[in-house]
Amino acid sequence: MRLEEDGPAVVLLDQRRLPDEIAEVRCATADDVADAIRDMVVRGAPAIGIAAAYGIALAALRGDDLDEAERALAASRPTAVNLPWALARMRDEPTPARARALHAEEVERCMRMAAHAAELFPEGTRALTHCNAGGLATGGYGSAVGALRAAAERGLLERVLVDETRPLLQGARLTAWELEQAGIPHAVIADSAAGSLMARAEVDLVVTGADRIAANGDTANKIGTYSLAVLAAHHEIPLYVVAPSSTLDRETADGSAIPIEERDPAELTSRFPARNPAFDVTPAALISAIVTEDGVHRAPYEESLG
Amino acid sequence: MRLEEDGPAVVLLDQRRLPDEIAEVRCATADDVADAIRDMVVRGAPAIGIAAAYGIALAALRGDDLDEAERALAASRPTAVNLPWALARMRDEPTPARARALHAEEVERCMRMAAHAAELFPEGTRALTHCNAGGLATGGYGSAVGALRAAAERGLLERVLVDETRPLLQGARLTAWELEQAGIPHAVIADSAAGSLMARAEVDLVVTGADRIAANGDTANKIGTYSLAVLAAHHEIPLYVVAPSSTLDRETADGSAIPIEERDPAELTSRFPARNPAFDVTPAALISAIVTEDGVHRAPYEESLG
Repeated sequence: MRLEEDGPAVVLLDQRRLPDEIAEVRCATADDVADAIRDMVVRGAPAIGIAAAYGIALAALRGDDLDEAERALAASRPTAVNLPWALARMRDEPTPARARALHAEEVERCMRMAAHAAELFPEGTRALTHCNAGGLATGGYGSAVGALRAAAERGLLERVLVDETRPLLQGARLTAWELEQAGIPHAVIADSAAGSLMARAEVDLVVTGADRIAANGDTANKIGTYSLAVLAAHHEIPLYVVAPSSTLDRETADGSAIPIEERDPAELTSRFPARNPAFDVTPAALISAIVTEDGVHRAPYEESLG
Repeated sequence: MRLEEDGPAVVLLDQRRLPDEIAEVRCATADDVADAIRDMVVRGAPAIGIAAAYGIALAALRGDDLDEAERALAASRPTAVNLPWALARMRDEPTPARARALHAEEVERCMRMAAHAAELFPEGTRALTHCNAGGLATGGYGSAVGALRAAAERGLLERVLVDETRPLLQGARLTAWELEQAGIPHAVIADSAAGSLMARAEVDLVVTGADRIAANGDTANKIGTYSLAVLAAHHEIPLYVVAPSSTLDRETADGSAIPIEERDPAELTSRFPARNPAFDVTPAALISAIVTEDGVHRAPYEESLG
């Protein structure tokens, strides 16, 4: 993900076509960036924040109306709070330098939270993760996948079960690909197999990213995270959320106020009626710890995240 | 599903190609029937029992070795007990008439259990089902889908959420198709969305079929059923198993002795390592009732099913 000042353009790796094809999408305007976020060319809460920052810098380079650019980008997807967070940070200095700094800071946050999160991994951990909270989702390194990388580097990780993550298969396409590149042993599973593998004592901990964390710790993340959290609690397996502070939404008291995107039912089936909520909310009570770049936070989260 | 004595052949609707294509597979030998069961041309515990019965009748018509035919059919898939059950019932009279009678009895069992199960549906029920326990899975009418049909006929059913059921999408392809034909309102969901929709109070009960029910009520069924059972218990939503007595395995004390089939990882992904257990076991304690043609059975199941 980068901004080219000649052109100018925001250039995005097309995550819809990975891992079969490495293709880039060139966005000539902020509207193009908004479309790319909506269509999930780029996805992952921190990554869409970074893309939006580049989109504002692009609009400024072109001399476009910045309020209009911000409105288009803000409306592209509703759940991840990183999007309005990044737009707010670009307001006073809508420059390429500012966007690039924001991008670099997000990656640096990932590396710091990964180091904190790795402390939670016992030796020989068999982890389970959902969706993609990897380098692709964060502009580099990853949140949950960053934690897995750091644990692997410390020799603490035996292997990772990767929920394939229907309907768009971010786990089977993106997380498995990133783990392969990192040399981390892994196996893709159907989302519905996670509970059974917990019952067979094949999962020591669950680690996910987040799209928005309310003040009380309630966490919106890819649909299926809530089910994993209930299953993990039932099996007394810890579930850790790893996310940069840009994902914290202290203005939202709890998960009930987080907007949940419903995406096109055709992502599931074009032949029959379907419901396609893209996110769910996991109550703070089911989350063992929330890890940000500042450290490992435990309940009560109003205080520890405050 | 039928036996043609001219030929002779067992003719199966190819469930792998539904609903896009209505195609038949003609099996000229019992080995062909075994291959069709293994490849899931025909699937669903009662249906593969019926197919095996027709396979034995076919071998007898051809004058083939019946012990060899039985061995091939018995080895085709390990989890559903209906397969050895049907083979045992064909031993003393391996005739087309006996196979057709077994088929008719299974459909009649479905209609009787559906009537019992419908008693469990309150008015305005919003049900959730997993995989396909419909007419396709049972030789006609259906077990869990039969219960939905009967509840709908009595005006008790508002609508059905249908887990798409990865990896082979029996819910999105087969159950949705059957519900459409029956005029029952429905919506396909990602398997991972079930928990979140329970949390939103959009599910009044869960109803599934079964592949093998141990003497204590532990129930093997399509992978993901166990997760649904844990989630249903967490939300205090009843989960009902609807299955004919041919699915009861009183010789197996509990679920730990039920063989769980691991299928080809390529059903999930051919590019990365994968694990593909096709079934899981739901402990009896998570099952609100087991409905057979004999009625509604409650815990302790050793007694009520005995």
